[in-house]
Amino acid sequence: MTDHAPTPIRVAVAGASGYAGGEVLRLLLGHPLFLDGTLTIGTLTAGDNAGTTLGSHHPHLLPLADRVLADTSVETLAGHDVVFLALPHGNSARYANELPDSVVLVDCGADFRLRDADAWTRFYGGEYAGSWPYGLPELPGARDALRGATRIAVPGCYPTAASLAFAPAVEAGIVEPRVRIVAVSGTSGAGRAPKVAQLGSEVIGSARAYGVGGLHRHTPEIVQNLSAVAGGHVDVSFTPVLVPMSRGILATCSAPTTVDAGEAHAVYTKAYRDEPFVHVLPEGTFPQTKSVVGSNAVQIGVAVDADAGELVVVAAIDNLTKGTAGGAVQSMNLALGLPETAGLSTVGVAP
Amino acid sequence: MTDHAPTPIRVAVAGASGYAGGEVLRLLLGHPLFLDGTLTIGTLTAGDNAGTTLGSHHPHLLPLADRVLADTSVETLAGHDVVFLALPHGNSARYANELPDSVVLVDCGADFRLRDADAWTRFYGGEYAGSWPYGLPELPGARDALRGATRIAVPGCYPTAASLAFAPAVEAGIVEPRVRIVAVSGTSGAGRAPKVAQLGSEVIGSARAYGVGGLHRHTPEIVQNLSAVAGGHVDVSFTPVLVPMSRGILATCSAPTTVDAGEAHAVYTKAYRDEPFVHVLPEGTFPQTKSVVGSNAVQIGVAVDADAGELVVVAAIDNLTKGTAGGAVQSMNLALGLPETAGLSTVGVAP
Amino acid sequence: MTDHAPTPIRVAVAGASGYAGGEVLRLLLGHPLFLDGTLTIGTLTAGDNAGTTLGSHHPHLLPLADRVLADTSVETLAGHDVVFLALPHGNSARYANELPDSVVLVDCGADFRLRDADAWTRFYGGEYAGSWPYGLPELPGARDALRGATRIAVPGCYPTAASLAFAPAVEAGIVEPRVRIVAVSGTSGAGRAPKVAQLGSEVIGSARAYGVGGLHRHTPEIVQNLSAVAGGHVDVSFTPVLVPMSRGILATCSAPTTVDAGEAHAVYTKAYRDEPFVHVLPEGTFPQTKSVVGSNAVQIGVAVDADAGELVVVAAIDNLTKGTAGGAVQSMNLALGLPETAGLSTVGVAP
Amino acid sequence: MTDHAPTPIRVAVAGASGYAGGEVLRLLLGHPLFLDGTLTIGTLTAGDNAGTTLGSHHPHLLPLADRVLADTSVETLAGHDVVFLALPHGNSARYANELPDSVVLVDCGADFRLRDADAWTRFYGGEYAGSWPYGLPELPGARDALRGATRIAVPGCYPTAASLAFAPAVEAGIVEPRVRIVAVSGTSGAGRAPKVAQLGSEVIGSARAYGVGGLHRHTPEIVQNLSAVAGGHVDVSFTPVLVPMSRGILATCSAPTTVDAGEAHAVYTKAYRDEPFVHVLPEGTFPQTKSVVGSNAVQIGVAVDADAGELVVVAAIDNLTKGTAGGAVQSMNLALGLPETAGLSTVGVAP
Repeated sequence: MTDHAPTPIRVAVAGASGYAGGEVLRLLLGHPLFLDGTLTIGTLTAGDNAGTTLGSHHPHLLPLADRVLADTSVETLAGHDVVFLALPHGNSARYANELPDSVVLVDCGADFRLRDADAWTRFYGGEYAGSWPYGLPELPGARDALRGATRIAVPGCYPTAASLAFAPAVEAGIVEPRVRIVAVSGTSGAGRAPKVAQLGSEVIGSARAYGVGGLHRHTPEIVQNLSAVAGGHVDVSFTPVLVPMSRGILATCSAPTTVDAGEAHAVYTKAYRDEPFVHVLPEGTFPQTKSVVGSNAVQIGVAVDADAGELVVVAAIDNLTKGTAGGAVQSMNLALGLPETAGLSTVGVAP
Repeated sequence: MTDHAPTPIRVAVAGASGYAGGEVLRLLLGHPLFLDGTLTIGTLTAGDNAGTTLGSHHPHLLPLADRVLADTSVETLAGHDVVFLALPHGNSARYANELPDSVVLVDCGADFRLRDADAWTRFYGGEYAGSWPYGLPELPGARDALRGATRIAVPGCYPTAASLAFAPAVEAGIVEPRVRIVAVSGTSGAGRAPKVAQLGSEVIGSARAYGVGGLHRHTPEIVQNLSAVAGGHVDVSFTPVLVPMSRGILATCSAPTTVDAGEAHAVYTKAYRDEPFVHVLPEGTFPQTKSVVGSNAVQIGVAVDADAGELVVVAAIDNLTKGTAGGAVQSMNLALGLPETAGLSTVGVAP
Repeated sequence: MTDHAPTPIRVAVAGASGYAGGEVLRLLLGHPLFLDGTLTIGTLTAGDNAGTTLGSHHPHLLPLADRVLADTSVETLAGHDVVFLALPHGNSARYANELPDSVVLVDCGADFRLRDADAWTRFYGGEYAGSWPYGLPELPGARDALRGATRIAVPGCYPTAASLAFAPAVEAGIVEPRVRIVAVSGTSGAGRAPKVAQLGSEVIGSARAYGVGGLHRHTPEIVQNLSAVAGGHVDVSFTPVLVPMSRGILATCSAPTTVDAGEAHAVYTKAYRDEPFVHVLPEGTFPQTKSVVGSNAVQIGVAVDADAGELVVVAAIDNLTKGTAGGAVQSMNLALGLPETAGLSTVGVAP
Repeated sequence: MTDHAPTPIRVAVAGASGYAGGEVLRLLLGHPLFLDGTLTIGTLTAGDNAGTTLGSHHPHLLPLADRVLADTSVETLAGHDVVFLALPHGNSARYANELPDSVVLVDCGADFRLRDADAWTRFYGGEYAGSWPYGLPELPGARDALRGATRIAVPGCYPTAASLAFAPAVEAGIVEPRVRIVAVSGTSGAGRAPKVAQLGSEVIGSARAYGVGGLHRHTPEIVQNLSAVAGGHVDVSFTPVLVPMSRGILATCSAPTTVDAGEAHAVYTKAYRDEPFVHVLPEGTFPQTKSVVGSNAVQIGVAVDADAGELVVVAAIDNLTKGTAGGAVQSMNLALGLPETAGLSTVGVAP
């Protein structure tokens, strides 16, 4: 091999039969380093689904349909340069401990997102495992921490939308630190474990709030992100609402303000002018989730309700792409020194 | 006719080919006075659809499928005891002026909802027509005003959900008068006029905010209702979100509070203990829109986010039933001295 | 009690936490004999859900929300005049044997639908339990067999749609006995047991064929019905397709014909002219499932493809209402000597 | 420029604000020749939408959001190497006549699909314009005709699915030439013109057959394709069914057969073994539309109903991708001598 040849990258995905794992694979199959042969997809693992083919779970991933899923274990995950962990919460720490430090571990779960051990224990229970560089490069300071990182905590889907929706406002100090968030989400955010409440018959034709009253586990993560940007505690009320679509989050976030619509919009366009994935819509325009389906784009609309004295920001993401697997691949790109946007699109699949 | 025989009631529906008119007819077809022959369905009118059959627009209304729609005019609507107006905004005043005072006019449009002429002009434009008794019997004082009324303004769908969600809290004074509302709605609230933004291909698989920044016409109506109950101005920020279902509104409403969850819940159960259609769910339980589809029920969940110091109330209605035609029939019942619940159900069609 | 007072009817529902059981209860809550107090809803039972409230499973059934579910057993079901069995296949026989012959048993399951023991064993496995009067009154001879019956087998949802779609044609002999059926169905037909394939994320945005090649258990039931009407074997190819809606079946059925559209349409209007629930649409008009949602109506469109020499009949039903619980209540009405249409509507909930 | 530099390709899209035009652009934005700068996107045109930005119609196409749409005219379309026509039927001929023969014209409309002038007149009306090389490379002989072509007729969406589903069977002679097709489709196939019947409120929660009795315009196109492959007339009965999803066609096609499942499956795997986009699923497995959303893949399941003596083949495509714009780009690739799969994926966006 000459010194011009790219270094091969061998990638494993743990939890490949779930939605997050499947989306990581969907994106990797379109990654330019996969297409040119530099990046190869190695071991794919599962829990109960070990021994079955990937195609029986993800028939949309045709090129990998015949791959047989291995057990998730340190042994099966060893020997890869990058390992995506798409496991139930609480299962990542052991791989973090036993896989070499040189392996880029990208955890799509919640285990290493929170820097506050008490918040972890309160919302997730069990033992706190620590925190890792946070895979939301658009937050102040986050991008630098991800370059060359070998341990990455991918943000939750709601925190991705809500944090990007309100970070510019709290950073610029144009709002009181009292944010109200109502975010509607498609069903895939709830994962693939079969539950009555997630059956098609239950969710089709219906909207349902859950975790009302600050109970959703993503609340402390939103507080952490916005407070860090604000340089002081930001008070957050967060209500998630399940709606009948498979993908997408639309987060409506507001806080008291005294600025006008033009000033607010200017804060946002300035904050995101160099971001490849975050797009601030023209004044008077607001996003729809369909515009970002399958893409890593974040579309943001900014308004001020002058009567109510409230800044209202609406952000749309695909919860599985930018909200999970896209954020994971974006972070992997930074960790490996690749172009940050490689394999990721700003073009959604619509209508 | 002996004095024991019930007085016949002859009902017309103007705008019968639209969604609101169709829903009024659906409910009337199940009304006990229709089933026993006392109430008869007279003239059905339409605009451009005049001359066509009702069945070509509403194939679900089988018993009336062969009815031919008349032009909407004072002449075609004359000679009825009750006239439901399901017309575009701004078209009701002329019928109000030219039909006899003895006719019960139930306006499903917005023309007579607002008591503030300036708010009317600002949000609807055109000349202010006045205000009528407001068809939301569950608000303080409203029920008495509807008994025997011959002019009734049916509330907007969002104001129905939002006002019932927060009236008890502002009446009891357990919140600051600063309410933030994000309400998701099915598509039928936008009516039946063909528009690109309402096509199935646009709305399926997508959530979209609109009227962001206090622009939605239902905002002043919510302010009017909550301020009247509070006895002082209530500040309202309202954001509607369109989601991919045909029927249903889920309104998430919040305001700063210092009470705890138990106190808040007690305020609600007390406020609605005698209401036949409003059901406060047990603590920790929150509604879904599917539970109320096709019914006149309002299901309400109450929570307090202690960390954020916020009361969060979630209300579910069917926008076409309790939010439009059900509220209209409930008001008609009161106006005519009938049992308030006649022809209206608390049982939704689920799943 | 005077001899003018109606005889009280006490009804139990076994399997009340599932979709079929819930729909039986939804209909009973609107039944005139329930509303006048003659019919009372007694014991409600469940399997694993015994001990929980009905409201925790069916929040749309507000009037029964606080009812606690009993275990399903001969003991808990004893002492009722009517028992609806909404149990997994293979569980009904024991109740049939141990409950008195005087009890009207209405089985919403498949146990007693087939008259051919071999077909039963081949498609369902296990021991054949026999056959009961078949709860599809619109088939020739069926209505009479249901009057006064105390054992009733409610048809499957697909066989209800397909049999009513094609019985007139095979009875009149206007087609070759070679019927091809492709029926799309909403998700509720698959029941409420949590399965990955039925998750909202799987079914939303997707159409999927299953049981292709004659494997679906409803195939022999369709063959049985059409062959009985034809007076000879009718060859049936049946493919079900799952589509993203909760309720509704649209069955497209065809067979070679030499008659023209007018003749075919006349056969159908004649066959169903006295049926209260079956409505043949005008020529050139075809049904949509939404028109019959929540109702017991069957809407049928009839066409002849002259180029292909094929009669094409499309039938729409609500799989949970006419296809299950509505058929069950209709049959109960006949068994008890009540008006056949009591508590059942021809008006769907649309849009 | 050296002789190694690739020849620049300048592409125009006429009808860019519709669904077909938008999908062509979505695919071009991911085409490797666009990404390396060889292919540039030139003029985008519209009818009534001329003068507005592309972003106001297709907010998912972020990189082109600020492009202003020109009028559709020979002048605005001149000067391009490739012109995609995504216009209402009957509008393509004039561009075909007035643009130079050297321009690759790819017509996504129906104008040049049929080789039978009478069939054209009967189903479309107006003057027959002729026929062009047919953009379904997987049909026998079609690929060669597309290499170097400068006039291409992209197939209809239903004919793409149905022809690929049944061409192997009729070519191999394993069925009688009597095919019955019921194909469910998402709403985007109906285009973006606002019509009541296509509103979200109408299509959500409903399935509806239309064009029943052989009236759909795609019928003669299916007959043409299958008859050409069979070498004799194939009799086709085709019923389309609209279901509540935005994208996707699932075509269930059947015909009498005497072969068994294994033989039938072998015919299909052999027929498509070298096709990059057509994937025959393992025996006993059947496709879902979600697996192909946004991709150019065709997934096919093959079964034999031995009782009924019927071959049943189910094919899934994305109507906008393989069924329209993907087929168009695939054909363009062939016409220009590019790799056939460039810019097209076999990986769908699921769940």
